[in-house]
Amino acid sequence: MEKSSDLVRRVLHSLHESSADSPGVTRDAYGAGETAAHAIVRAEAVSLGAEVSVDAAGNLFMTLPGTDRSLPGFMTGSHLDSVPHGGNFDGAAGVIAGLAAMVALRESCMIPPQDFTVVAFRAEEAAWFPISYPGSMAALGKLDPDLLNVPRSDTGRSLAAHMAEAGFDVDAVRHGVAHIRPDMVAAFVEVHIEQGPVLVGRNIPVGLVTTINGGFRHMNATVTGEWAHSGATPFSYRQDAALAFAELVVGLNQWWESQEVVGIPLTITFGKVWTDPNMHAGSRVAGEVQFSVDVRAGSSAVLAAAADQLSAAATSISSARGVKIAFGSRFEWSVEEMDSRLLDRMEQLAANICLPVLRMPSGAGHDAAAMAAAGIPAGMIFVRNTNGSHNPDEAMDAEDLDRAVALLALLASTPLAALLDRSR
Amino acid sequence: MEKSSDLVRRVLHSLHESSADSPGVTRDAYGAGETAAHAIVRAEAVSLGAEVSVDAAGNLFMTLPGTDRSLPGFMTGSHLDSVPHGGNFDGAAGVIAGLAAMVALRESCMIPPQDFTVVAFRAEEAAWFPISYPGSMAALGKLDPDLLNVPRSDTGRSLAAHMAEAGFDVDAVRHGVAHIRPDMVAAFVEVHIEQGPVLVGRNIPVGLVTTINGGFRHMNATVTGEWAHSGATPFSYRQDAALAFAELVVGLNQWWESQEVVGIPLTITFGKVWTDPNMHAGSRVAGEVQFSVDVRAGSSAVLAAAADQLSAAATSISSARGVKIAFGSRFEWSVEEMDSRLLDRMEQLAANICLPVLRMPSGAGHDAAAMAAAGIPAGMIFVRNTNGSHNPDEAMDAEDLDRAVALLALLASTPLAALLDRSR
Repeated sequence: MEKSSDLVRRVLHSLHESSADSPGVTRDAYGAGETAAHAIVRAEAVSLGAEVSVDAAGNLFMTLPGTDRSLPGFMTGSHLDSVPHGGNFDGAAGVIAGLAAMVALRESCMIPPQDFTVVAFRAEEAAWFPISYPGSMAALGKLDPDLLNVPRSDTGRSLAAHMAEAGFDVDAVRHGVAHIRPDMVAAFVEVHIEQGPVLVGRNIPVGLVTTINGGFRHMNATVTGEWAHSGATPFSYRQDAALAFAELVVGLNQWWESQEVVGIPLTITFGKVWTDPNMHAGSRVAGEVQFSVDVRAGSSAVLAAAADQLSAAATSISSARGVKIAFGSRFEWSVEEMDSRLLDRMEQLAANICLPVLRMPSGAGHDAAAMAAAGIPAGMIFVRNTNGSHNPDEAMDAEDLDRAVALLALLASTPLAALLDRSR
Repeated sequence: MEKSSDLVRRVLHSLHESSADSPGVTRDAYGAGETAAHAIVRAEAVSLGAEVSVDAAGNLFMTLPGTDRSLPGFMTGSHLDSVPHGGNFDGAAGVIAGLAAMVALRESCMIPPQDFTVVAFRAEEAAWFPISYPGSMAALGKLDPDLLNVPRSDTGRSLAAHMAEAGFDVDAVRHGVAHIRPDMVAAFVEVHIEQGPVLVGRNIPVGLVTTINGGFRHMNATVTGEWAHSGATPFSYRQDAALAFAELVVGLNQWWESQEVVGIPLTITFGKVWTDPNMHAGSRVAGEVQFSVDVRAGSSAVLAAAADQLSAAATSISSARGVKIAFGSRFEWSVEEMDSRLLDRMEQLAANICLPVLRMPSGAGHDAAAMAAAGIPAGMIFVRNTNGSHNPDEAMDAEDLDRAVALLALLASTPLAALLDRSR
């Protein structure tokens, strides 16, 4: 029988082949890229003898039966979409880890005490639909029906349209038909590459997530000033949107740095910025700058302080520079705590196999946050990874993923309903 | 006979009609818009009995003979192209002022002492061919033949191709055949709307330009950092191109403000900025920001100081933020002084007709700069104008143009060869 470590490398390879889009890979949510990845993963699960089902939103569930099928099950998994020209590991590594854990259980002739389900969620990357986890929310029957109208960023067509096109049941999603019933799940643990540099910096292969940060994001913020001739418009006559934007970015970063100094972790990111290609010119003062801003923290008080800071800076810059700053609609998501009993158990199990781990927050959002918000005890295993994620250079060592698989298989072998006080 | 003020309004109206392209007007250089404007102006000159000729590059010359045709002549004029969706006055007002001055001379039964020539230059707006004054440079036989290969920004086809298509003699231009011989021109004075807010702010109808600022521009500057996940990448691990760009903009504007305080005029404009739409996301630290920067001043020492400042700021920000800042190719143009004897005389003549004037530099470049660079005593008359130029909202009061016409006609009536020590 194929070893779990061989499965990891082989499936990573076929996912890369199926979605290569130089540089990197593109697995578009509800598009060809994601669908091909689901087909590959599904075929693997079938050949492992897992029970396979797909819910109304196209989420894929692959179950290895446990000794007592009446117990709430253990669920793992992640998503299979990627950002455009992203890396091969963000999301996919967590689904493959689940399949490999099935193999690892077989290798040790172990039938888990409860059902062990690997899920491949849809549409997790906000690069496609700029909302939180529509796939896992739909699996929970909790997707706000209004969000079905959100357009995909590249095509402009709605989530509902893309879902229907990929062959799924939009009406059932709209009516909140749930595939995951929280009381049927003892625990959910997601394996995911770390998207930051901390584990590499600390030289620790695996992280155990304590909290998934909350945050808010403005995708359509605008500074409106006045277009003017560059050479003919002196300093004091300008309403320069580029300068006002720059002052906002510098001001917020200075505030962020001041928070770092006193040990308050958060992130502030101005990821997108542009002047209108039909209006801007080298010889023209910018009359409008559009931008995005994304703020994340592990505490809602810190998020509120950051929002205050943004708005105070905007007010003072607007008045100094004669511009208007409008942040536009605000998208937000809440802080989610991971289950401390699961964390303690994973730490013990890691110690048993001499695997060094680091407790750390997750700055990024994950499907595990949706599961935690639904009342399911949740955890995350981070895998050391170089160069961050959402880029073609992400670089996870497959041996580190093997380590996470070993930990996951041990957890799957644990009677979780008792540990976590879960009964149907 | 039609009054000069009626001609002003009528020809402004027909130019607008011929090139309306909502919002504003579009008179594309060597394209249909500019060609239609030349036809309208030419017909007006013919009906005024002017001698009309067109040079190899399509520049249009309209001459009212003076009493002594052996003297070097007085030349006025401007360009007839506009930026895309620009205003009706930038350029055209100066050509119409010349025609109206011919009428004004007739109204006062005055035959000018030397020939009076109105020129309509081609292709002045860098929005089409991003080079300095190809029309007037060609008229002087000084257009660098390499520049004939520069593509028009919208069509991608070369200046030579557009020139040939419009029916002109590219070979003669390439070989430097001159239509304007500097020794045949006693003086050149261009009438042009002010493209900044100074005359409106000071409530003065007419400006006399002292200097046409020089400058330099980088159209393809880049900050290169590293794309990274917004939530997962702490402050100290970032190489944030958006932050580095913002620091550069704020730093250079602070330096500019410090120069203003000590009375050194210049302009610094970051007119274009964008992150790559195929790479950027709200949840991604910007790995690259592209931008333009345009610097202008009335002194080459100030331009050199600004260039030093840009490069010093780039060096220090690059090292602090772990990014690379590359300014790319540099396009530059030199400072041109207007003739002080012309300035003094225009000031006297304005006083004679109780016309308040303001001496001021021109931040923008003009065909008058090419004439001055060729050794022709040059001047410019600015006309008060609201909302700047290069936009559909530019708003000149025709009565202010009438005032400039009166001044121009008085100057045309002045024996200029003697005043300016010009003899053939």
